Amino acid sequence: MNRLSLIKVGGKIVEGHDSLRYLLQDFASLNGYKLLVHGGGRSATELAAKLGVESRMVNGRRVTDADMLQIVTMVYGGLVNKNIVAGLQALNVNALGLTGADLNLIRSRRRAVKDVDYGLVGDVEEVDAAALGELVRKNIVPVVAPITHDCAGQLLNTNADTVAGELARALAGSFDVELVFCFEKKGVLLDEADDESVIRELDRRTFADYVERGIIQGGMIPKLENAFAAIDAGVKRVVITRASELLTSNGTVIQ
Amino acid sequence: MNRLSLIKVGGKIVEGHDSLRYLLQDFASLNGYKLLVHGGGRSATELAAKLGVESRMVNGRRVTDADMLQIVTMVYGGLVNKNIVAGLQALNVNALGLTGADLNLIRSRRRAVKDVDYGLVGDVEEVDAAALGELVRKNIVPVVAPITHDCAGQLLNTNADTVAGELARALAGSFDVELVFCFEKKGVLLDEADDESVIRELDRRTFADYVERGIIQGGMIPKLENAFAAIDAGVKRVVITRASELLTSNGTVIQ
Repeated sequence: MNRLSLIKVGGKIVEGHDSLRYLLQDFASLNGYKLLVHGGGRSATELAAKLGVESRMVNGRRVTDADMLQIVTMVYGGLVNKNIVAGLQALNVNALGLTGADLNLIRSRRRAVKDVDYGLVGDVEEVDAAALGELVRKNIVPVVAPITHDCAGQLLNTNADTVAGELARALAGSFDVELVFCFEKKGVLLDEADDESVIRELDRRTFADYVERGIIQGGMIPKLENAFAAIDAGVKRVVITRASELLTSNGTVIQ
Repeated sequence: MNRLSLIKVGGKIVEGHDSLRYLLQDFASLNGYKLLVHGGGRSATELAAKLGVESRMVNGRRVTDADMLQIVTMVYGGLVNKNIVAGLQALNVNALGLTGADLNLIRSRRRAVKDVDYGLVGDVEEVDAAALGELVRKNIVPVVAPITHDCAGQLLNTNADTVAGELARALAGSFDVELVFCFEKKGVLLDEADDESVIRELDRRTFADYVERGIIQGGMIPKLENAFAAIDAGVKRVVITRASELLTSNGTVIQ
């Protein structure tokens, strides 16, 4: 099977002019098939504040009412996505900006209300891996914004890490997928205060142990659960690292 | 050659909830290959006002500074485009939202400053008709936002009528293109005060005569010049009508 690099980059990187430029240069020089999933939460929060719309987060996830959905559709689907696409085209990468509604690529269901009503947030139900794979094989590089749809006309906000994980799992049947989550640190840290204390390799047993001992906590836990779920679904390799290590693939390797 | 319906719809239609719903139903029931180009100027103006960004129009065209480019990228490329895509997907139309940067489809050059500095506005230089045609032949329905790019990473704002005209001309080599401009009236009117005074057919000679006599004026003149340019470039038929006449194709026929 052909290799596919599936890169997820967070808001901080794609929203800074210089950091975005470096990221796109590195991404452009990656060999082989590739796909980018991006966030944009900071710009969404900033625009919301300017428009007087309150940003409410629960467990690190954004509560999305109708006004907030308009904002994330504008920021993720428009501003961030199209600037990345134009930047990649300038580097001769044939980028195509997509949401889950485009080509019906990512179908989701509005999250049921349990303890929290997240509003217009979608849990992924199905990914059209065949359609995505067909694009990729033509050397088209999908740039995916974390917006999905319910097939009944409703756009839904979906966590970008989740979108990346679901795409990786869906594509694992037809490509050797390497999934790279880029964030601010060099990897998962043994000691939050020491940026050099990167855990080089992490298996499920060690992960459980570190969570119990409080070494791994907060938002890193769902990110890693996502990573292990991807490995279980046949993704070859998951790396958690910072954007500047995109070409080296150094960081925390999940297996 | 296969027929292709290329529909351009203005802001007023795509920005109203009900008018958009009717439009998408009619568009979905059009037979054969099709493509939609949309505007979104009213929403852009509205968002700009909320953000304290001044909307400045010269000769009916929007002056686009860096702030305004962000706004139109969000509104045209994100909000309006993705809502249309999700609405069409709900009607089993395999819509794909695009700007000119995606797949490098519409390359433009920043307009040179003569009397007016329009700012980040692009004049279309080249359309990738082969790539667009390939999508269309797979029964993918492109939904095109009026944003182009200069191939050097800069998005540029481009008039939606112009985008529709340029796409029609580019596709005329491989499809029998019918180009339909939808706006608020039933067609070009002989008497602005009488909505029923639709000019059924208009050729270049009559057009010149009507312009001279002041019967046709204002924003209708560039729209019609666009239409005649499309006919000259091999587009089979150009119709100017209102959205509710999409299925009948009644209105003013340019030939």
